[in-house]
Amino acid sequence: MTTFTSSVFRTETMTVPGGTETILRGGRDLFPLLPAALHGIRTIGVLGWGPQGRAQALNLRDSLAGTGIKVAVGLRPGSTSADDARAHGFTEDDGTLGELLAVAAEADLVILLIADAALAAQHETIFQALKPGATIGLSHGFLLGHLRAIGSDFPAGHPVIAVCPKGMGDSVRRLYVQGATVNGAGINASIAVHADPDGHATDRALAWSVALGSPYTFATALSAEYHSDIVGERAILLGAVHGLVEALYRYFRLQGADAVSAYERSTEAVTGPIARTISAAGLPAVRAAVTDQDLFDRAYSAAYQPARDLVAEIYDEVADGTELRSVILAEQRLATRPMTAIAGSEMWSHSAAAHARRDAAATELDPLTAGLFVATMTAQADEFATRGHAWSEIVNESIIEAVDSLLPYMHARDVAYMVDNCSRTARLGTRRWGPRFQAAYEQLALPALAGPADPKAIDAFLHNPVHEALAVAAELRPSVDISVS
Amino acid sequence: MTTFTSSVFRTETMTVPGGTETILRGGRDLFPLLPAALHGIRTIGVLGWGPQGRAQALNLRDSLAGTGIKVAVGLRPGSTSADDARAHGFTEDDGTLGELLAVAAEADLVILLIADAALAAQHETIFQALKPGATIGLSHGFLLGHLRAIGSDFPAGHPVIAVCPKGMGDSVRRLYVQGATVNGAGINASIAVHADPDGHATDRALAWSVALGSPYTFATALSAEYHSDIVGERAILLGAVHGLVEALYRYFRLQGADAVSAYERSTEAVTGPIARTISAAGLPAVRAAVTDQDLFDRAYSAAYQPARDLVAEIYDEVADGTELRSVILAEQRLATRPMTAIAGSEMWSHSAAAHARRDAAATELDPLTAGLFVATMTAQADEFATRGHAWSEIVNESIIEAVDSLLPYMHARDVAYMVDNCSRTARLGTRRWGPRFQAAYEQLALPALAGPADPKAIDAFLHNPVHEALAVAAELRPSVDISVS
Repeated sequence: MTTFTSSVFRTETMTVPGGTETILRGGRDLFPLLPAALHGIRTIGVLGWGPQGRAQALNLRDSLAGTGIKVAVGLRPGSTSADDARAHGFTEDDGTLGELLAVAAEADLVILLIADAALAAQHETIFQALKPGATIGLSHGFLLGHLRAIGSDFPAGHPVIAVCPKGMGDSVRRLYVQGATVNGAGINASIAVHADPDGHATDRALAWSVALGSPYTFATALSAEYHSDIVGERAILLGAVHGLVEALYRYFRLQGADAVSAYERSTEAVTGPIARTISAAGLPAVRAAVTDQDLFDRAYSAAYQPARDLVAEIYDEVADGTELRSVILAEQRLATRPMTAIAGSEMWSHSAAAHARRDAAATELDPLTAGLFVATMTAQADEFATRGHAWSEIVNESIIEAVDSLLPYMHARDVAYMVDNCSRTARLGTRRWGPRFQAAYEQLALPALAGPADPKAIDAFLHNPVHEALAVAAELRPSVDISVS
Repeated sequence: MTTFTSSVFRTETMTVPGGTETILRGGRDLFPLLPAALHGIRTIGVLGWGPQGRAQALNLRDSLAGTGIKVAVGLRPGSTSADDARAHGFTEDDGTLGELLAVAAEADLVILLIADAALAAQHETIFQALKPGATIGLSHGFLLGHLRAIGSDFPAGHPVIAVCPKGMGDSVRRLYVQGATVNGAGINASIAVHADPDGHATDRALAWSVALGSPYTFATALSAEYHSDIVGERAILLGAVHGLVEALYRYFRLQGADAVSAYERSTEAVTGPIARTISAAGLPAVRAAVTDQDLFDRAYSAAYQPARDLVAEIYDEVADGTELRSVILAEQRLATRPMTAIAGSEMWSHSAAAHARRDAAATELDPLTAGLFVATMTAQADEFATRGHAWSEIVNESIIEAVDSLLPYMHARDVAYMVDNCSRTARLGTRRWGPRFQAAYEQLALPALAGPADPKAIDAFLHNPVHEALAVAAELRPSVDISVS
């Protein structure tokens, strides 16, 4: 699944540990090729106006300006998002804004970006509305998991493709805009061709990815995308970060740190200098940068196995369908029991104070926090490698998406804000697994700090092939500073 | 399912809120009736020698002494438990100790007390070894859940009964021994008749329960038993207690308490005076006993809904089969990833110091800890009532088992020790849900303490029908002081 061919774009072969992967380098110079690659597509329907829907609709419209290919937004009747869509220039008058099923019925490529729960409830209706041979587009594998869970499938005769940006919607738009002047700015994406009845599915997926502004596009299978996407957000992207900083904040407080300092040494360190160091120079650079390398090594040694065990547990439950079943049960409860926020715990009341003194004192790269975080990130990458994922998928889903999209956003807001405002599937997963990570750090990793570093664990870290894979990927997509307004 | 009739024992009708339930009051005076009730049973095979297996084998043998009914223990070949069984008088020489399948093939009542994972793996082999018409005995509903999950069923033609003591094995034996001199000592049990092809299943179940020393026996369905049993151990019996004291310990420490005092105000308060007060006088007595009733009320108001939401979530996952699926996935991982202990977190290093100064200072009934704990216990009882459980099942599974069996054991050891040494299914569940309770207290309940008490919540607590149900049950089974050696 890591190789593909295109009749329109010139692909490249990327050398990764143990082999090669086909990739497509993006860029605005490829935009003239989009009409040819979007074979047979005259209208693209983007269903939904969440962060991902808005970003994709805007990027696609901008990239396809002047080609005659129309981008229309479809919303459910009475959607409160209609005003915002109109404010961004999608209007009923010119036929670029309409009712969900009407847009689905008109479009040649129908991109499903409504919420997971809505997708679970309405996919049949949408499928029935499609034109014969219309291409079904996804941006993550949730629907595949759901269809398998209910013993159903995509409708026959329709190409089914996925383009999955490895970053949140806000980043997909923001970096696209930056990409007009900063070479290489953008969010990498994976593509998956799940059904290709007319033989043009790969080129359509590549065109969609290029039009979103992806600096580089790699290939995966929809099920592999689903597994790594759902596991990743429950682990290093959201759940593990939340569990880690909750554990560390209390730990530092109990060691005598005042509240704002404890906040800085936990949250600020992760979302600031640790993320930036990884983004710019990779994981071993964090170890090289800390003042107390022994403490980093002890922290790494203490956290790696508990984190790895948890990632494996999450992976088992996602691959088995248990996790998705839990999401569906939770959705049913939400009718009578609204989801509560995680932002209530004491530490988040110090966000503003910590943010306010950013200019006064550069946040130190706390060695303990760094060791625990890097161990967890490496554990996820290793578990993904063991489960057979492609290196592009591993480094994008475990590292690049974290340090270039989510952590900068958390740095601008805070971790709890990010969790409480992400997709419902991700929110539910973070609530489910974040406390497990917190418990693993509190019960296993932090108590083990008293012991010595494990030379074997440190050696395995320093010689981990993930560093080479990340370096190759970084050449295609230079580190970009993402400001969040 | 809450009414039943017996042709041997004289049942009673217990008045509970909104209706009545049939119960059987136990006692040694009923032992002469056991042979008649154990219709057709000449040999009882107890498979397994865990705490529950040992306790039941010993109690059954003692109660049936002189009747000619043999109690034999069956162990897998090479079991390390054989020596302990021999030390307790079960020997190959007199035919009361044998290989698992041989004992299963010989017995007229086969009680399955091997570990859940072993039961999942071996139930088919055991079923095939049974004599025609032999009665299958269970002590919880796990096997029913497993059979449903794999689309299987109990073999036709065999009576299937359950006797489920509402306490851990050690308590079942210890209170039975005390029962020789202390009237009413014993662990209550539920019975369930799942298949009754010969019409004698109810009397057999009642006899088994009486022989175990149950002060009172009530009836339920095997699925209801399964739900309340698995949910209960994940919530108030183990998971919630662990999550609560982990959250409170850090909370008190951050408020300035020294380590041992924080341990006393959290763990010691719950396992000591709070449990004893509930056991002796019910839930409202805790509120009446605290020095700061306003703080109790604020804590209760803050914790009730988050705890209720979590119990509902656990219940959904247990009833759906998701929880069992997760246990099976975990069992598969254990081959390569041994289960870690939860006892590593810092607070448990102070158990000995806290225990050592018990005599010096009576543990205060901390109002905050009391409010959070009583709210969680009430939330579980309310959720069980909403899900249609019988009152006997509700009060035994939510209150009596906690305050008369598990919490006293935790008081003697500590909470983490108890969790790390209970059944694998319970350990897995506690690791899964304990951190969720901890997060709910940290993120929701403790921050909400700053607000006022909710008069509606307190009023609903004071007038909750569970108090009446508990009082009725307590008359049948007086509070007994359980010492743990």
